[in-house]
Amino acid sequence: MLFFTQCFGAVLDLIHLRFQHYKAKRVFSAAGQLVCVVNPTHSLKYAPTRCAAAQASTEQGVLPPCHHHEAVHDPQLVPCTCPLFSCPWEGHLEVVVSHLRQTHRINILQGAEIVFLATDMHLPAPTDWIIMHSCLGHQFLLVLRKQEKYEGHPQFFATMMLIGTPTQADNFTYRLELNRNQRRLKWEATPRSVLECVDSVISDGDCLVLNTSLAQLFSDNGSLAIGIAITTSKVHNSEAEM
Amino acid sequence: MLFFTQCFGAVLDLIHLRFQHYKAKRVFSAAGQLVCVVNPTHSLKYAPTRCAAAQASTEQGVLPPCHHHEAVHDPQLVPCTCPLFSCPWEGHLEVVVSHLRQTHRINILQGAEIVFLATDMHLPAPTDWIIMHSCLGHQFLLVLRKQEKYEGHPQFFATMMLIGTPTQADNFTYRLELNRNQRRLKWEATPRSVLECVDSVISDGDCLVLNTSLAQLFSDNGSLAIGIAITTSKVHNSEAEM
Repeated sequence: MLFFTQCFGAVLDLIHLRFQHYKAKRVFSAAGQLVCVVNPTHSLKYAPTRCAAAQASTEQGVLPPCHHHEAVHDPQLVPCTCPLFSCPWEGHLEVVVSHLRQTHRINILQGAEIVFLATDMHLPAPTDWIIMHSCLGHQFLLVLRKQEKYEGHPQFFATMMLIGTPTQADNFTYRLELNRNQRRLKWEATPRSVLECVDSVISDGDCLVLNTSLAQLFSDNGSLAIGIAITTSKVHNSEAEM
Repeated sequence: MLFFTQCFGAVLDLIHLRFQHYKAKRVFSAAGQLVCVVNPTHSLKYAPTRCAAAQASTEQGVLPPCHHHEAVHDPQLVPCTCPLFSCPWEGHLEVVVSHLRQTHRINILQGAEIVFLATDMHLPAPTDWIIMHSCLGHQFLLVLRKQEKYEGHPQFFATMMLIGTPTQADNFTYRLELNRNQRRLKWEATPRSVLECVDSVISDGDCLVLNTSLAQLFSDNGSLAIGIAITTSKVHNSEAEM
C-alpha cells in the first residue's frame, strides 16, 4: 500500500514538473531559450560568521573547505563553506564541478542564454535554488537564495559565480532578467569567483535583490523565471568610473 | 556677522551644487543627456492609512484631495493625499503642474532622456527627491523615496507617475537605469497615474526598490544618478502574459 502511495506521489511530482516546464517553454519559446526547472533545496543552515576569513581566498585555485577548521594553519585552506551546502567536502577548483554534480546532484546546462525557472517560491527561508551553467568554455553557478536578512522579512538574492579564479571571473559579464506583466527588471554585473563565499556576496547585497512583493509581481503561480545570459566583458556603454 | 556667515554658507552650497552638476555632466556627457541635480525634501510626514481609499480614484480626472476629509461624500473628492506632500491643496489634473511648480517649487525638465542626480542619500528616512519631466506631450513625476518599510531598515523606492489618467498612463513605458562600477540595474514598467497614490505604489513594492547596500554600490559620494527614459508603450520582447 505504501509502495503504491509513493508511486502515486512520484507520478504527481512528474506531472507537476512537466507542467512547469511546459509553461516556461511557452513563455520563453519566442526567444528559443533553454528552460530549466529548478526545485528548491531546503536543508541549508547558515552560520553567520562562517565567511569571515573567506576574503583571504586568492588566486591559488583552492576552493575553501566546506566547514570551519579551528586548527587549520595552511594559508591555502581558508576556513569557509562550500558555495552551496554546509558539506564537509573540500578540494581544488578543477574538481568542484564533478563534486557538485555527483554529491549535490546540481544540473549543468549548456548555452549562452538559458531560463532558470525556480519553483515553490513560497517556501520559508532559508532556501536555495541552484544550477550550473556551462558557457564560453567555463562553468558558472547560479544561486537564488531566499533569506531573512532582517527577521520576519524574507528577500530573494540572485547571483552568478564563476567556477574559476577572480581574475578569470573579471573576463565575463552576466545578466539576470525578470520579465512579466509589462514590467522588466535587469541586473548586469561581473560574476564573482566561487573562491569568494556566496554568503558574503549576499550579505554585501552585491547581487539582484528582490523584496517578497517584487518577487510576487514577477512570479507566476509560485514560480519565478529568470533569464540568464553570459558574455565576455566589455566596457558598459555610457558608463564611467564615477 | 550673522549676515556674512549666511552669505558664506550660501556660497559653499553653490559651489557644492556646481561640483555635483559638473560631476554628473562628466559621467553622462557621452550620452548627451540632460542632468538635473535634485535635492531632497525633508519635511514629509507619512500617515500610514492615508491612501486607504485612494484606489477608488478613477478616470474622472480629479486629483485626490491632499488630506483626509472625514465628512466628504462627493465621489469625485476621494480622501487621499497630494502625490508629494501632506499639503491641504486639492484640485483637478489640469492645474496639478502649476501647483507643483508654484507651491512646491518642483523643477520641470524637457527631453526624452534625462539624468536625475539625487544628492545627500545619507539623510534619514523619510526623504523624497522629486522632479517633473515633460516628454511626449505629457508631464511625468519622478519620485525617489527613502522610507523605512521595516523599522531600522531604510530602502529606496523610485517610480514614475503620469500627471494624467490611468488610461493615458497605459500608453507609456518608463525606464529607470542605474549604472556604475561595472554594475547595471534597469527597471521598466508602465507609469501609474497621479490619481493613484504614490504611497500605495511604494507599499505594493511595484517600483524600483533598492536596499541601502545596493544604493551605496550605485551612488558616488552620497549622490545617486538615475537615467530616465520614457517611450510610448509597445509589447516587450520575449514577454507574454504568464
